[in-house]
Formats: sequence, structure tokens, C-alpha cells
Amino acid sequence: MGRPVVLKGTVKVRLKDGVLDPQGQTIRRALAQMGYDWVRNVRTGRTFEVEIEAEDLLTARGRLEEISSKLLANPVIESFQVEVRS
Amino acid sequence: MGRPVVLKGTVKVRLKDGVLDPQGQTIRRALAQMGYDWVRNVRTGRTFEVEIEAEDLLTARGRLEEISSKLLANPVIESFQVEVRS
Repeated sequence: MGRPVVLKGTVKVRLKDGVLDPQGQTIRRALAQMGYDWVRNVRTGRTFEVEIEAEDLLTARGRLEEISSKLLANPVIESFQVEVRS
Repeated sequence: MGRPVVLKGTVKVRLKDGVLDPQGQTIRRALAQMGYDWVRNVRTGRTFEVEIEAEDLLTARGRLEEISSKLLANPVIESFQVEVRS
């Protein structure tokens, strides 16, 4: 096992297909009222840029997946995608 | 000018470097309290999946940039990145 280093990762969280997005709908209506009526649909998502201490990429990836399912995303209504850069 | 079609785009909004991210700091502290003390830093961002009516990719891209700077992002503290798929 090597020395821990700090690795950078990204978690992208989005609502699952079929789950209503009231925030997105509000934004679409606001845009329409501003004259931007060519906007058909808006769906919102969140991203997290995370610095993680780990021995290697695989460990960092596993840790990122763990905190995503435990805290960053709500697995009932959201899906997430994890990426770690070397 | 062709017939308008509906094109899909993504806007990624993030805080500019140096801008404090209280939400990210709160998440990092919450994770540390849960025992995930290998998380060094968290910065939050937002994404918008937008369907836009436009004649072509270039027009759609311009429209996406316009609504990003007018509503989706706060240009004072945030930067944004726009992408349109054909």
C-alpha cells in the first residue's frame, strides 16, 4: 500500500428520468416570461468537486461512490456518476 | 434558414476560484462527522440540461450562453460552460 495522496474527483448528480423537477420548471417559466420562449425544457442537477485522500485511483473512486450514495445523492430519486482524475 | 429543431444542451455552473463555498464546507464537515475524514475539500456546482428550439447548433449555443449569463449563472461569482449536442 502506497502513501496516501490527494486525488481530485467529480460527482454528477441528476434526477432519475420520470422524477418531477419543480426547480427546472420554475426556471423554464421564468425564462419564458423574460421572452426566451424557445426554451422547451430544463432539468437541474448538482455537481461536487471533491478532493479525496487515498492510496490509489481505485480506492479514491470507491470512497467517492460511498459518500455519493450516503450523503451527496438521494438514491431514491437521483442517480450519480463518479469520476476520478489522476 | 432551416426549420427549427429541438437541440439538447448542458450548462455547467461553478463558483469562480477564490469564491467561498459555504455549502461545500458544510458538506465536508458533515462527512467528517460521519467518519469520512479522508475528504479534504468539497466544492459545489450546478448543471442544467436544457432543450432549446433553434435552426442550428450555433444558434442553440448562442441562446444557451445568453440564458446562462442572464439567469442560470451569476457572472459576478460564477463561471459557466456551455455544450450543445447534435
